[in-house]
Order: sequence, then structure tokens, then C-alpha cells
Amino acid sequence: MAHGGGGELTRQLVRDRIVPKLANPLLVPLTDGAVVDFAGRRVCMTTDAYVVQPLVFPGGDIGRLAVCGTVNDLAVMGAVPNALSLALVIEEGLPMSTLDLVIDSIAAAAGEANVVIATGDTKVVERRGEDGLTITTAGIGRMRDDVRLAVNRIAPGDVVLITGTIAEHGLAVMSARESLAFETSLRSDVAALNGLIAAMLDSGADVKFLRDPTRGGLAGVLADLVDDTALSLEVIESAIPIKPIALHAAEMLGLDPLTVANEGKCVVVVAAGDADRVLQACRRHPLGASAAAIGRFVRADPPLVELITRAGGRRIVQRPYGEELPRIC
Amino acid sequence: MAHGGGGELTRQLVRDRIVPKLANPLLVPLTDGAVVDFAGRRVCMTTDAYVVQPLVFPGGDIGRLAVCGTVNDLAVMGAVPNALSLALVIEEGLPMSTLDLVIDSIAAAAGEANVVIATGDTKVVERRGEDGLTITTAGIGRMRDDVRLAVNRIAPGDVVLITGTIAEHGLAVMSARESLAFETSLRSDVAALNGLIAAMLDSGADVKFLRDPTRGGLAGVLADLVDDTALSLEVIESAIPIKPIALHAAEMLGLDPLTVANEGKCVVVVAAGDADRVLQACRRHPLGASAAAIGRFVRADPPLVELITRAGGRRIVQRPYGEELPRIC
Repeated sequence: MAHGGGGELTRQLVRDRIVPKLANPLLVPLTDGAVVDFAGRRVCMTTDAYVVQPLVFPGGDIGRLAVCGTVNDLAVMGAVPNALSLALVIEEGLPMSTLDLVIDSIAAAAGEANVVIATGDTKVVERRGEDGLTITTAGIGRMRDDVRLAVNRIAPGDVVLITGTIAEHGLAVMSARESLAFETSLRSDVAALNGLIAAMLDSGADVKFLRDPTRGGLAGVLADLVDDTALSLEVIESAIPIKPIALHAAEMLGLDPLTVANEGKCVVVVAAGDADRVLQACRRHPLGASAAAIGRFVRADPPLVELITRAGGRRIVQRPYGEELPRIC
Repeated sequence: MAHGGGGELTRQLVRDRIVPKLANPLLVPLTDGAVVDFAGRRVCMTTDAYVVQPLVFPGGDIGRLAVCGTVNDLAVMGAVPNALSLALVIEEGLPMSTLDLVIDSIAAAAGEANVVIATGDTKVVERRGEDGLTITTAGIGRMRDDVRLAVNRIAPGDVVLITGTIAEHGLAVMSARESLAFETSLRSDVAALNGLIAAMLDSGADVKFLRDPTRGGLAGVLADLVDDTALSLEVIESAIPIKPIALHAAEMLGLDPLTVANEGKCVVVVAAGDADRVLQACRRHPLGASAAAIGRFVRADPPLVELITRAGGRRIVQRPYGEELPRIC
């Protein structure tokens, strides 16, 4: 199970056992999608399998999650999402009312994100336990020609931003699962980010990196950034937007909110001079009202993510190792 | 479970509960894929979820099946397959050796079909029973501009061809599951058909329809053709290629081979004058050596698939209703 948590063990499984055998230059970067040359057009392609339990949680459901997750993976690659495919594996006994709710939610989310569900597949398998439904979406989008996202362009002094409050998706799903009392006010942030990301990219800022911090949370993305740039990151804990209810829920569940999945947030890297422009573009968008600069890249050996805590101390942030939150997305 | 067999009930579930809510003109035809306009390029997109049990069967495994199935869905739409996405849902406890075998097989099949595995996702979920692995692939390909596949071009007198012997995939999987004695000589036909289909399309024949008869078998495709054209089909049973071992296995298992899944065959419709040209192109290809003309369209009310049996009788062929072969692909 630990191989599925989205942390270090997942990375090892994929990097060591799967990618080398399928070896091709598109797969090696292990980003959220691949760019395929298509008779002169650059097409971005991405896929995700969704296994969240429960299927319906405060603020969303597996259908909304599947559409938004795939739209977001395309958008953070610098693509304009266009069409999605939808594969359903339904377990025998799934109530038709649940299937109806999920399909309605898929239709609504696709409408919000302005993408079309172009094609699909449906399989039904034997019942295994509670309500069972797995959704796999793939998506394609046209790469924007005016965007140059590349970690090798990140330099000391560049600023890391997050577009809003963290940890709500994972905590909402966990609290629904545990039937905890705060479940009514804590809701998943699941949302399609293509509009917000377009606003940032259209601001004229030279955006160098975009990533939605899903499995592995903000900590996972920051650890990836340090690995990929060989620079260190200084992050100010008090600058990271988080709702009091989420902090409280994380304490109750014994989780570090930095490692908890988000489904409607984006991590952004820009040169220091462009940070304000991106923040303003974010804050004008309904999904970016709480956007904040949270840290900056520095030259320091060994490359680490260093968190300057509220108490003024320093702590190293690591990618979660194994299973933190199974079936969170 | 009956909703998953690929027959009439599956068609009802998808047509009545899913498609209307996601309403868009791309989904309505319920074909194997959708054609998306992409800045002047026509991109075909398709997806399939694979839930076959056992994961490894005579002649193939779930990995080969996933790659070939998606390549074939693109090819029968008239597209040149280009890139695939790969989403794995691994159940806890799946032997690493099985995962390795499947990944090797995916790499080999992608090589044979000349497609790239461009992007992927891996989830691990709790153990549920026997070896558990679900693979969902999506694929994109460039539509050929020289091909005009459209059921509304089919006319009385047009000929139906099949590119080889039927029913081997479903029977091989079922016999592996039942540990039947003929399992050693009966093998799945799972193969990538893009090369064979290109040979047919390049022959100069005016091909009007292509479809790989997977779930629901040859009977399912013939029933679809009659529904979609409002013409009847006369099919000669003795002309349908089938290996003696497959006939024998179908009898042992109590199955009608016309309704059993194939994973390396294609149904083709052409004008009578072009049938020989297509057959010759097929027979020159290793995957099309047993190709045969099996029937023709006639005007007759009500529209039906009529099988002229070996004994000289006539029988109506129907789409299988519900669960015939669960977890066959």
C-alpha cells in the first residue's frame, strides 16, 4: 500500500520499475503530461486514475475530481485543455443513484472547465465491498506557444507562490471517511484551474513552473523542485495560506498539512520581479483570492527545502515517504 | 454484472444513463473513438479500461491487450495511432514479477504497433482477492484524410469481410480461467491491427466501415451494422473463418462463437467490386491470411442479421443481451 501514497516509494516504483522499460524521451521527465508533436501542432496528453473513497465527499465527488484533475494536469503543462476521455470501472451493486450523481457532476465540471467529454468506455466487475467505482480520465490540449515552462530556467532569487489555502481536499476526504465533527465546514477545494492559470500566463509574467500539489501535497512539489534544480528553497511557514479549520483538522488527524493533497491549487515559480504581477492576476480570479508568495530559491549545499517555522525555528521539509493518505484521489 | 458484458444491457446503460448527460455531438455516435478538431488537424481520441482475469492467458496478458485494444480502436476509426497514455491501478500484493511481466509486454506491444507510451499514472489500492491490476489506456492518432468511413455510405449489395478466424481471445481467456484441457493449443488472437488496416486502406479500395469485434463478438458488430443502416445482412455461416479447436472449445463452454470477443480481427464493409482487392491486401499481411467475405447487405424488412447455417437453415443473429463473458478484456 505504501507504494501508492504518492510519496518517495511511489516515485521509486514508477521511476525504477516502469519508466525504464517503456523508455522514451516523453516519459522520462515524470511530469503531469507529455507533449506529442502532431503534424506541426504540439498536443499535450495526460492521464489519471481516480480511486477516492468515499465516492462523494464534502465539496465534491469522484466525477468532479476526475475532470478537474485532468484539466489541471494539462493546464500546469502550459496547455489549453480541449477534450477528455472517460473510462468507468463500475463494481456490481453500485447504486444507480450514485452513478447518476457522478455522471451529472462530470457533466457540470466539464462545463465549468470548458472541455468536452469526447469518448469513453464502461466496464462492470464483480462487487468487492463498499460502493465501488474507479474513473480514469485522459485529456488532450493544445500547448500554448507563448509559455516557456522549464525547471532549468529556475534561478536563485526566484519566488515560489501558491494560489490559495492548502490541504483542504485531503482533509475533507479523510474527515468524511472518519466521520469527524468538522466535516460540515471543511470542504475539498477540487476545482478546474485552467481559467486561473490562463489569467496568470496572460498577465505577461515570465512563469517558469506550474504544478498542482495533489498526492504528496505542497511538500512533494517543493521536494521535486529542489531535486530538479539542485537549488535550495527557503519557505516561510507563516506565509503559507491555510484555513484555521484545516489546521485544526490536520492536528486531529495527526497529519502534516504540507503533505496533504490539494485539488484546486497551483504552485508557481517566477522571477522575483514578476511575483507581484502574478499575485495580482491570481487575486482578481475567484480561485486565487488567497494567493501568496511563500518562499524563494537560494544557492545552498546540500539542496534542501528549509521551512522557517512560525516559532522562528528551521525544519527540513521532505517528500512523504510512503502511505500517508490512501485513496485520496 | 449483466450490464458489463458488452451486449444489449451495456448498450442501454451507456446510451440511456451516461451519454445524454454528457451530451455532445462527439459522444453520440458511440463508436470506438472521437474526432477532435485541433487547430486544423483532426485528432482521434479513444479510451478503454481493461479488467481481464486472469492477468496472463494463453497468447497474451493484460498489458498486451491494453496496448493492442487502444491501437485497434484508433485504427478502425481511420486514424494512424501515435501516442498512448497508461493508467495502472495496482492492488496491494500484486507480485512484482507479474507487474514486471506486464510492463515488459506493454513495451513490446507498443514497439510492434509503433506507438509511444507518452504519459501515465500509477495508483495502489487495498488487496481484494486474487492478483489485481486494472489498466486504462487512452490513445490519440492523426485521422487519415483519404479515408471516408461512414455507415450511411453502406448500400444494398455491399460485402462484409472479416480479417481472420473468430472467437479465439474470449475462448482462450475462458479456458485459462476454467483450466480446460485445450488451453495449450488455443491462444488469444490479441494483436495490433494498425498495419493490417493500413494495408487495406492503402489498397485503393473504398472501405466504408471498420470495427474490431471485441466484447459482444462478431454478432455484436453485425447487429450494430443492421441498427445503423436499417438494412438486413445475409451471412453465410460456412464462410466465417473459425479454427476447429475454437469450435470445440465453444461447444465445451456452451458459448456461441459469434458472440465471443476477438482482439486481433477486424470487420470490414466494402462495395462488392472492391471486396477482392481488400481480401488480397489482407491475405498478403501475416494477420490477415484467413480473411474471408462472409455476407452482404440486402434490403429486407424488418432489418435483421440472418445467418444461413451450415445445415442450410436460417437463423436470426442477435446482439448478446447481458453477461456472456465477464472480465474478458
